Amino acid sequence: MKIVQKEFSVSTKSRSQMIDITSRVASIVGESAINDGDVIVYCPHTTAGITINENVDRSVPHDILLALEEAVPHHLSGFQHFEGNSDAHCKSSIIGCSEQVFIKNNSLQLGTWQGIFFCEFDGPRSRRVIVQVRGQ
Amino acid sequence: MKIVQKEFSVSTKSRSQMIDITSRVASIVGESAINDGDVIVYCPHTTAGITINENVDRSVPHDILLALEEAVPHHLSGFQHFEGNSDAHCKSSIIGCSEQVFIKNNSLQLGTWQGIFFCEFDGPRSRRVIVQVRGQ
Amino acid sequence: MKIVQKEFSVSTKSRSQMIDITSRVASIVGESAINDGDVIVYCPHTTAGITINENVDRSVPHDILLALEEAVPHHLSGFQHFEGNSDAHCKSSIIGCSEQVFIKNNSLQLGTWQGIFFCEFDGPRSRRVIVQVRGQ
Repeated sequence: MKIVQKEFSVSTKSRSQMIDITSRVASIVGESAINDGDVIVYCPHTTAGITINENVDRSVPHDILLALEEAVPHHLSGFQHFEGNSDAHCKSSIIGCSEQVFIKNNSLQLGTWQGIFFCEFDGPRSRRVIVQVRGQ
Repeated sequence: MKIVQKEFSVSTKSRSQMIDITSRVASIVGESAINDGDVIVYCPHTTAGITINENVDRSVPHDILLALEEAVPHHLSGFQHFEGNSDAHCKSSIIGCSEQVFIKNNSLQLGTWQGIFFCEFDGPRSRRVIVQVRGQ
Repeated sequence: MKIVQKEFSVSTKSRSQMIDITSRVASIVGESAINDGDVIVYCPHTTAGITINENVDRSVPHDILLALEEAVPHHLSGFQHFEGNSDAHCKSSIIGCSEQVFIKNNSLQLGTWQGIFFCEFDGPRSRRVIVQVRGQ
């Protein structure tokens, strides 16, 4: 099995934001020359995450962030963390800090409407994304 | 490392539904002849997901769907997506589109009460599940 | 590819609790003598989960559990499961039962503030954690 690991950075512009990183992940897969296997996309931050969802209609990420904000409000009576970003930590654990996608013929095997998103929950910040391609 | 990939389809009958796909995944693992490794179960859709939870008492999936509906309502003031299924996209990102399970002696190494579920959030529809078994 | 699998147990003390298991996972990675690859941390229970989040300030896990409790209340009109722990099953599916972390130079490649947590949602109980290290 061959393992190729790369990373890139993402600049987020607002407190909550979903940024489509599909083409950046696809480039790393292409350069890896791995035909069959999978790729793991990993976020090394605790107030952000990685998800896979629709990347065609921009209203979808907007609505996902809105629904998450409704489910986990920015301020909640009882929060103890002094930084005031407890909701962002919780959203990070809800969304998760990694996703994996199969690789076939050196390409991402995503569904028709699927794209890979970096999810910012406590921006704006400069963030890292680590990508590991594994296979043969 | 050997990689075996198969897929199957699932017909969902209602808007929100959890369908136990454990035996179908177990069959693919069995046919793969892989003894040690893992299996990734992947949903290529953006309004559905994959989860692992109790598959003995049917009231568990019922209650999980109810609690998710309470946390992420079908209609929310501010939703912009024209299809009216923004809640389903959000639930898909909350539950996640894949799960992985270890394989030992060519069998799924699930906990006593664990089963693998396809989660429909915008049905009824015909859906696909992609399964990749990896190991030796 | 080499595969090393171990498990350990965790004793939880309250109904909802996040227990930092980073050092226990790191020990298993160290003993595996695998330098490059990844580790999967898996919870074989249906009312608990695994997450990665900040393990420096103890108020972070406290606030994550509080926000989850707010989003998914212990008791909800309409719950049918007789055990009265439907919220715990739902939280398990929201948080997920596994996480994966890359390994570099025989060490966990976590972000600066990241730790691995076992999440109890229906304790106190004795629980198991299964760890699989894969790579070369």
